[in-house]
Amino acid sequence: MQTIRQRVASRAISPGDRLPSVRSFADSMGVSPSTVVEAYDRLVAEGLIRARRGSGFYVTGAAVPPIPIGELEPRRDRAIDPFWVSRQSLDTDAAVLKPGCGWLPADWLPQGAIRRGLRALARAEDDTLANYGGTRGSQVLRRHLLGRFAEEGLDIGPEQIMLAGSGTQAVDLVCRYLLRPGDTVLVDDPGYFNFQALLRAHHVRIIGVPYTHQGPDIMAFEAALAAERPRLYITNSALHNPTGASLSPQTAHRLLSAAAAHDLTIIEDDIFTDFEPSPSPRLAVLDGFERVIRVGSFSKSLSAASRCGYIAARADWIEGLVDLQVATNFGGPSPMATELIAGILSGGGYRRHMAELRQRLTHAREECAERLATLGITPSVMPRGGFYLWCSLPDGQDSADIARFCMQRDIVLAPGNVFSASQNAAGFMRFNVTQTRDERIFTALADSLRSTPS
Amino acid sequence: MQTIRQRVASRAISPGDRLPSVRSFADSMGVSPSTVVEAYDRLVAEGLIRARRGSGFYVTGAAVPPIPIGELEPRRDRAIDPFWVSRQSLDTDAAVLKPGCGWLPADWLPQGAIRRGLRALARAEDDTLANYGGTRGSQVLRRHLLGRFAEEGLDIGPEQIMLAGSGTQAVDLVCRYLLRPGDTVLVDDPGYFNFQALLRAHHVRIIGVPYTHQGPDIMAFEAALAAERPRLYITNSALHNPTGASLSPQTAHRLLSAAAAHDLTIIEDDIFTDFEPSPSPRLAVLDGFERVIRVGSFSKSLSAASRCGYIAARADWIEGLVDLQVATNFGGPSPMATELIAGILSGGGYRRHMAELRQRLTHAREECAERLATLGITPSVMPRGGFYLWCSLPDGQDSADIARFCMQRDIVLAPGNVFSASQNAAGFMRFNVTQTRDERIFTALADSLRSTPS
Repeated sequence: MQTIRQRVASRAISPGDRLPSVRSFADSMGVSPSTVVEAYDRLVAEGLIRARRGSGFYVTGAAVPPIPIGELEPRRDRAIDPFWVSRQSLDTDAAVLKPGCGWLPADWLPQGAIRRGLRALARAEDDTLANYGGTRGSQVLRRHLLGRFAEEGLDIGPEQIMLAGSGTQAVDLVCRYLLRPGDTVLVDDPGYFNFQALLRAHHVRIIGVPYTHQGPDIMAFEAALAAERPRLYITNSALHNPTGASLSPQTAHRLLSAAAAHDLTIIEDDIFTDFEPSPSPRLAVLDGFERVIRVGSFSKSLSAASRCGYIAARADWIEGLVDLQVATNFGGPSPMATELIAGILSGGGYRRHMAELRQRLTHAREECAERLATLGITPSVMPRGGFYLWCSLPDGQDSADIARFCMQRDIVLAPGNVFSASQNAAGFMRFNVTQTRDERIFTALADSLRSTPS
Repeated sequence: MQTIRQRVASRAISPGDRLPSVRSFADSMGVSPSTVVEAYDRLVAEGLIRARRGSGFYVTGAAVPPIPIGELEPRRDRAIDPFWVSRQSLDTDAAVLKPGCGWLPADWLPQGAIRRGLRALARAEDDTLANYGGTRGSQVLRRHLLGRFAEEGLDIGPEQIMLAGSGTQAVDLVCRYLLRPGDTVLVDDPGYFNFQALLRAHHVRIIGVPYTHQGPDIMAFEAALAAERPRLYITNSALHNPTGASLSPQTAHRLLSAAAAHDLTIIEDDIFTDFEPSPSPRLAVLDGFERVIRVGSFSKSLSAASRCGYIAARADWIEGLVDLQVATNFGGPSPMATELIAGILSGGGYRRHMAELRQRLTHAREECAERLATLGITPSVMPRGGFYLWCSLPDGQDSADIARFCMQRDIVLAPGNVFSASQNAAGFMRFNVTQTRDERIFTALADSLRSTPS
């Protein structure tokens, strides 16, 4: 049934077309004819196809029920399905422990500054509180970002930067602008799992390139460019999610050369930049926005509640992206959100806050790694910053099994294969060191390691 | 050049394919061969195609430069281009008068309530100020909306409603969920111009159905359903933008019957609901969310700066839409925004504010209509509510000419053809009565009527 639905939804077969005969469809799908008969009957009941006596089955003109993107590919084990993991993390209440989630607890964020900022916002100009805001977003915030870029050696003008509704929305907007269904896109493997979910929504082909301690496996990357002719590569360079690695200068340079040779466009997500102790090589800085598009947000370092992201790129692409954002959202982020964020960033407090946060996180990573080591769970690399530990489990353990076990105890983990397009990370798990402190988590992990078969 | 670019971008021709010969392409485009030669040369310079000696021109493997959606169709006169009109309205400063824009001035909105709400938000719980928020959005706000729906006779549960980043984003999300490139979509003609811009971004075919004083021309609607087999119809029923008309009961009923006969899905945008003196027939209420999807936001009645929209529909579609929103935005609207809005709506002040606003707007519509009448500009219908007047110009006047003239004087108007997919509204203009008060506007209109040829 799913196959037929997909063919109709993708217009491979159209209203009026005749479906394959029961026998030939059963042969090609490797199932019994009675299975096909039942499937066809149920599709008739749904109104998607109809039977013409003596002639076979035909596609009706009925509206094709939309296929949820969670079902565009064979339904994966929920424990490792990106959609399910996101929902579990986002929709559970505080009683559920979330060592696998991707954000800091509220008390690690600059709450005081946010509250002060909201009181200041209550005294803001009428227009800030009422209007849609300019199409590129708050000039104050954009100027602030341009200043930070200049410190890195990136000298760009205001026409090369725009604000968006969030970091994810920024990546999505660029994908809408550059991609067509059927295009091929490269991602890191392992890599941020929501990139996969997002790319499924764009109906593109996803190819994973193995990620090492120094960035993508450069030979595999070059081979993938030649063999797959991808349109786009999406990555995050500074404090890679989930491994915590950063690009080496050689990898960065070789990657960009390969990209140039194959006219590859790159989206570089800078979301963990402020967690670095010192700047690592950045593709956007080396490239100067010829083929690299930089995307970022303040969701990890400041607040995920005040939604705001940004895009920096070639000026002509920014023009087109602004048009697209107006058409699909009638503007960018909330002017209230941008005024709030701009106010917090311009005070000296933010830099101090991040310096303290980086120190606090260093201790948290060390403590968490020690605790996990007692269970035989060890990080593949100790990251220079950030709040993730990408850990290998004791031999033979499957992280999806561990995740399912702990789910019974109201603990949401992030099993490795959620992050791996090639499903090659069953022996790994990502831990958020700021959310992996409660004793119940270590108890559950210990129990699950004992109980699940190696 | 544009034709070739579009064909490559849409994959109608692929890398390696041979382009039409200079002569045959010149014949089919109705231009001289030398024009084609120059076009091909420039495309070679861009790297999109290459010349093979003695063989012709071939598409290279080069990345196709994205086509800005503003250029997917032949570049229209800027004065009537939806993208240009939006940008002009959104990006100009307060010095520019905006009688054509689609929102209330800041001092017409409940500023006091917003400021009080922000001070209360500064005392909100940590999680509200820090986290992403649930995937369906603030339960408090959704419950409030469900209560309002129940008052209309719509008895639905929380699984049938979700919050989105804005009203436009809500419509966009539904379009991403239901539409595929090449599908046909019906819109009102005249109708809200940003629906056209949004649908262009979805690469669908747009067909306009004439809009009358009682809703869509029902015979034209039924004919379009039969002839065009559209997937979707997007409309706003209560206080239609731009005409200010509302559905008659007969039109509503016949429209839904036709929709059922052709399995048409309908998005009904409720954005001006609160401006009605009393409820007019609503498709969602009659249909009960079988094929109607209701979308709304608070941008017009409360604030456009605090971005939040909602979608109500069949539960299975809401499930899929939530997944899609997580993939493309990692969540819904800002929890800060939803808490702010929920707080304002739950106080008694909002209903009082809207009652006063409706009275104030009634006077404003009458005053504005009187003033415009002295220039021979008359509304086609006096709306029951809202802030628009859809006016016909004196005989023979072209609203695009008027708009261009007034642009020289820093006045942004909304000429009729921006709203008309069939370009049949050159003699009409939409005025926002709250932004059409400054004497300079009437002076400029008078001067332009005198100076532009009939």
